[in-house]
Amino acid sequence: MNDQAYMAQALRLAEQGLYSTHPNPRVGCLVVAGEQVVGAGWHQRAGEPHAEVHALRQAGVLARGATAYVTLEPCSHQGLTPPCADALVQSGVQRVVIAMQDPNPQVAGRGIARLRGQGIQVDLLEGELTAAARALNCGFVKRMEQGLPFVRLKLAMSLDGRTAMASGESQWITGPAARADVQVLRARSSAIITGADTVMTDNARLTVRAEQLPLDAELRDLALSRPPLRIVIDGGLRVSTDLAFFIAGPVLVVTHQKPPANTANIEYIQLPEVAGHVDLVALLQELGRRGVNELMVEAGPHLAGAFMQAGLVDELYIYMAATLLGSSAQPLMQLPIDMMADAVRLKITEMRALDDDWRIIARPLPAH
Amino acid sequence: MNDQAYMAQALRLAEQGLYSTHPNPRVGCLVVAGEQVVGAGWHQRAGEPHAEVHALRQAGVLARGATAYVTLEPCSHQGLTPPCADALVQSGVQRVVIAMQDPNPQVAGRGIARLRGQGIQVDLLEGELTAAARALNCGFVKRMEQGLPFVRLKLAMSLDGRTAMASGESQWITGPAARADVQVLRARSSAIITGADTVMTDNARLTVRAEQLPLDAELRDLALSRPPLRIVIDGGLRVSTDLAFFIAGPVLVVTHQKPPANTANIEYIQLPEVAGHVDLVALLQELGRRGVNELMVEAGPHLAGAFMQAGLVDELYIYMAATLLGSSAQPLMQLPIDMMADAVRLKITEMRALDDDWRIIARPLPAH
Repeated sequence: MNDQAYMAQALRLAEQGLYSTHPNPRVGCLVVAGEQVVGAGWHQRAGEPHAEVHALRQAGVLARGATAYVTLEPCSHQGLTPPCADALVQSGVQRVVIAMQDPNPQVAGRGIARLRGQGIQVDLLEGELTAAARALNCGFVKRMEQGLPFVRLKLAMSLDGRTAMASGESQWITGPAARADVQVLRARSSAIITGADTVMTDNARLTVRAEQLPLDAELRDLALSRPPLRIVIDGGLRVSTDLAFFIAGPVLVVTHQKPPANTANIEYIQLPEVAGHVDLVALLQELGRRGVNELMVEAGPHLAGAFMQAGLVDELYIYMAATLLGSSAQPLMQLPIDMMADAVRLKITEMRALDDDWRIIARPLPAH
Repeated sequence: MNDQAYMAQALRLAEQGLYSTHPNPRVGCLVVAGEQVVGAGWHQRAGEPHAEVHALRQAGVLARGATAYVTLEPCSHQGLTPPCADALVQSGVQRVVIAMQDPNPQVAGRGIARLRGQGIQVDLLEGELTAAARALNCGFVKRMEQGLPFVRLKLAMSLDGRTAMASGESQWITGPAARADVQVLRARSSAIITGADTVMTDNARLTVRAEQLPLDAELRDLALSRPPLRIVIDGGLRVSTDLAFFIAGPVLVVTHQKPPANTANIEYIQLPEVAGHVDLVALLQELGRRGVNELMVEAGPHLAGAFMQAGLVDELYIYMAATLLGSSAQPLMQLPIDMMADAVRLKITEMRALDDDWRIIARPLPAH
């Protein structure tokens, strides 16, 4: 095995944390002595030991002279737990291989410097594994680099790009496999945001349903222990808090009006108004400050279109059903475009069958 | 090699005729003596020798005692060429393996009976290869069974199911690979049909462009020697015959009005009117009588929607570009549906990347 193969293994460890590490990043660590893996760990939850600590504990004295593979540059600062760079130094490892630097420009390189200062050889990988390490923490990386969450817009449509009938008649148009996949998306998100109409009209809860989550028991329990924050944008404070959305657990209500007092389950935040609506950029900044890495937008056509039109969407997850709803049905989202030159160009990064449906993952490309 | 493998090879031979055999079916024939292929042939053009004759000529005396694999039951009647069943008998083959019976219910089984009557063992395959043989001649099979052409509706859309801006502004939204694929579709079709608006507004010619056809020289020349009939539905006889469509070669104009006299390049046919439009069922019946196997619909949203709504589409070819044209853009087709229960359910049979675009092949499923 070479560095690449060991790091690929460390990345698979890190992926176990997909549903539970936020606001922390997902990190995996492998300790290799000779050709033998003597320690393996991954970060599970904020406040609990980091990946390196798990792996080094498992390795014990076998860490002396060994190589540690870590998917993210070890931290050099005291957070909720002591710095991992120090733990690596104390363990006696001879060499540390890292898939990517800390994305926070203010601390990037400090962990590496600390290790090198103690005589440890540090190698920073480049290429595909670095890209994979960044992709695994797309939300943490964006928040560290830009102060904003990674915004993932989830949509479900017919083959002809429609979501419901003109009358408003609507029902699940995708099958169980697509619905289970949406549960996975929810579970990996730090927060899920929707609009007042979805909460009122669809009586949506937007919770993670344990029974629909296709994960093994350990990961499912971890996921459920760190459920995403549910957020509703309710500019005019129109929504009754008797609805299922509010009963299902803690929620954040975002408004541009003066909000009522918080309750046990409901926190209100007031944000500036732009053209009668909550300022979405201010909202994302606030969520960034609150440690939201990945924000999932599960909303009706107006809010989905507003995020899209403002250029705030990083990734689209579109579940496409094998059906035609016709030309009078409701559009994928409210997105008025007048000229071909203003069309939103996308890069489709994945196309996958989910039973009879298809999942399309795409990223908006910069405007011409 | 077993029967299945030889027949698969005969099917690949038959596929060479994709662009030139109409109104005849695409047929391939392999003559095998012992373990050796001693003859191989495929039907090229109506009026020219059938696949069996090519293969038997190549085999010569080696056909005696050999096995012939034919993708379609050999004909037993005198057409433009003598019956192939007789040619097989005269060749001295001992056994004939067939992938599918003649789809014409009035002659199905006669070729087999004629061979068996002469002491030849005949085996009719079943299963996947029979399905593949039928699929290769979807148009011929449907015309023989129902008197109607196989209707293939070609559409190009954005990811959100739109085709052009509200203003009518329009341009190719798919790339060169998708456009080349459309040329292949045109070349395999017996006829291409469009509406008056497409001919007038887009100045469409709907010809097969030799230079865009991704075929080797022999097949390209064959394809160009049998170009599809180009048809325009012009109920009210509004279209000027000075347009490119009419200058590019022979065309058929379908109207519900009393037509003018035919010209060298233009044939008019008058058909009944239904609600102000040409009766599409009567049109398909007429095209079936004229030997049209595969009819490609390349039309604007109204005519495409009319074929779809009438339940006359057998297969959809949708070229999907990685772009969003937005909610004010024009729909995939004019297809008014009021209730979820009336949505058109589809079976997606293929999804393939063509550079940055995707090609979706789908078949409408029977209504609930």
